[in-house]
Amino acid sequence: MSVYRERRRRVAEHLDARGVDLFLVADSQERRSPSLRYLSGHPMDALLFLDRRGGSILVPWDVPMAELRAEADEILPYNDFGRRPLSALLGVLHREGFDPSRPFTVALDRRFSHPSVTGMIQGVADIFPRAEILCSDEGPDAFIEEMRMVKDPVEIRKLRGAAEILNRLIDGIEDSLRRGGLSSELDAALYIERECRILGAEGASFETIAAGPDRSFGIHAFPGYGPGAFASPGLSILDFGVSCDGYAGDVTLTVVSGRPSPRQRLLLELVEEAYTQALALCTAGTPVSRIAAAADRVFSRHGLSMPHSLGHGLGLQVHEAPYLRSSPEKEVPLRPGMVFTLEPGLYDPGAGGVRLENDILITETGPEVLTRARILYI
Amino acid sequence: MSVYRERRRRVAEHLDARGVDLFLVADSQERRSPSLRYLSGHPMDALLFLDRRGGSILVPWDVPMAELRAEADEILPYNDFGRRPLSALLGVLHREGFDPSRPFTVALDRRFSHPSVTGMIQGVADIFPRAEILCSDEGPDAFIEEMRMVKDPVEIRKLRGAAEILNRLIDGIEDSLRRGGLSSELDAALYIERECRILGAEGASFETIAAGPDRSFGIHAFPGYGPGAFASPGLSILDFGVSCDGYAGDVTLTVVSGRPSPRQRLLLELVEEAYTQALALCTAGTPVSRIAAAADRVFSRHGLSMPHSLGHGLGLQVHEAPYLRSSPEKEVPLRPGMVFTLEPGLYDPGAGGVRLENDILITETGPEVLTRARILYI
Repeated sequence: MSVYRERRRRVAEHLDARGVDLFLVADSQERRSPSLRYLSGHPMDALLFLDRRGGSILVPWDVPMAELRAEADEILPYNDFGRRPLSALLGVLHREGFDPSRPFTVALDRRFSHPSVTGMIQGVADIFPRAEILCSDEGPDAFIEEMRMVKDPVEIRKLRGAAEILNRLIDGIEDSLRRGGLSSELDAALYIERECRILGAEGASFETIAAGPDRSFGIHAFPGYGPGAFASPGLSILDFGVSCDGYAGDVTLTVVSGRPSPRQRLLLELVEEAYTQALALCTAGTPVSRIAAAADRVFSRHGLSMPHSLGHGLGLQVHEAPYLRSSPEKEVPLRPGMVFTLEPGLYDPGAGGVRLENDILITETGPEVLTRARILYI
Repeated sequence: MSVYRERRRRVAEHLDARGVDLFLVADSQERRSPSLRYLSGHPMDALLFLDRRGGSILVPWDVPMAELRAEADEILPYNDFGRRPLSALLGVLHREGFDPSRPFTVALDRRFSHPSVTGMIQGVADIFPRAEILCSDEGPDAFIEEMRMVKDPVEIRKLRGAAEILNRLIDGIEDSLRRGGLSSELDAALYIERECRILGAEGASFETIAAGPDRSFGIHAFPGYGPGAFASPGLSILDFGVSCDGYAGDVTLTVVSGRPSPRQRLLLELVEEAYTQALALCTAGTPVSRIAAAADRVFSRHGLSMPHSLGHGLGLQVHEAPYLRSSPEKEVPLRPGMVFTLEPGLYDPGAGGVRLENDILITETGPEVLTRARILYI
């Protein structure tokens, strides 16, 4: 059984247990839903209907791409439904033989906007008055996201592939910097764009942030990179990732050029200390809030605070569950197979920014640091 | 009065006329809402509250960035609200002196997911039982999107800037191709990434699609580019854009290398014919469906069809209203100040793909073609 079919089988079991007859996953430019790729292999831009008996219908924007890459029981062109989710939903309900005189339950992707859901509820009720339409954060999406939080062996292999490419990029970047190369943000960012693809990545997993000393104080410098100086005296940040067969890695290097000021030294030391303390806590069973709180404490003792989370899960999305926050919306204890970033950072409009970010796999015996990002003193 | 304040004034007038006391615009990684930048200058990742008297409160993820780039009456850190939209909304309601014993109306960004809206409605009702919370496709977002569809002079200047950079890139690409350069997809795509920034763009407005003859049959080849050959014998597609001060341009070149087959010649001729016929109809007052239908007819006479729309508006988003479709959800007559793409295309798994895309500004006297994309025979 293919990995996609096996994943769909688990979802179907869940639907059946919850009495959900049909579940609609939707991925579009407006709202990316990586469960599409997780469950069908189709990379993007499609509706995917899953029924409680394990059946699947893919409704892609691009049919030739689906024929090449997707695995589903049936493929129906989105164009045939006037490119409207409601029309596709009604079409599939008819095709699957749902009976207007009987009750049934449809769950919708929780990413649909409120107005879309309102429209679909109304449109279905007009024809299937006894249908119940659900769309909540606790529906099948939550089950799939929970599944996706713990990676299966196929996924871990892909994430290791992404990490391996990142490690080769990190080494290449360090080499170039020591030889005086990558002296502009553009050079640094485009080095990554080119090399990652040559090394086999699909591409960057997000827009590289190459922020020279003038701009590194921004959490996420905007724009990501420009023609300005990189790795000139002061603190530069290089935050980048690659996507391998859909799976994302994400690392951040801080480049220290010249002699750091006392303030810069303090930021560098605290970020390294927060990283070390957090990593030591990354064992199965530990709640994520404890790890994030440990990093926060390192900073708050010096009256500083980190304006972002300590980390985030990695997988088909570059930001996904678990989120490492000291006050998480939902507490998550670490489990073997989870892969996430640790990325403590401090930002000072005068001194610049420091962030150190690596990708961590939780194993039965503790954390395995997949990537080798570091603070580079050049 | 700054352009942002003037735009907010128009929105406030609309809110006041509709009896909406507070409107919440929300932009985050999950759901981009370019109205944030349109109304405040802040590029991304923030909530923006607008009241009916013209007041504005920005709640950014990144406060230093907001202090540099945003224009709003007040800036409150998102962190202060535990990074939750509901907490920020309640905080602003308290701060603005909304009275729990009196009725008032809040409209939410229509991009919010259904579960988020459900949560906010409940959370507000607990404290402000008489508040009415609206979230619909016909709310203030629609008014703002309508405003954004017709560009003001500041916006047209920025769109011309993007087009000018695209034209210089197109010329550079043609030169390089004629000299035998850009022979891989990577070379073509990274040429654009580098040069666009040197020419003053913020960056690409979307991931470049450089698809050599093997892959050009995909509407949107995935991944966008790789180490494979570009402009080798057959049909290659290069679809790229740049963003200038937030405003997007978007063009597609088809590169024909070697002697096209009869099938390829047919595709090329039909795409050019569809483009020419559509452009001739681009005058103020013409409904977009008529323009799209004209292009569709060119193809359908030969039993072919285009698997995507004829075009889309350009502005702070690279895809925005108006959408040029032969059966649009909402009919839109062209108006002076509208800027959109015309991009007829045909795709054949055997022969490859052809797409020709330029950016058009509607003026009082007819269409002005801002970009100079073309079919390149090399």
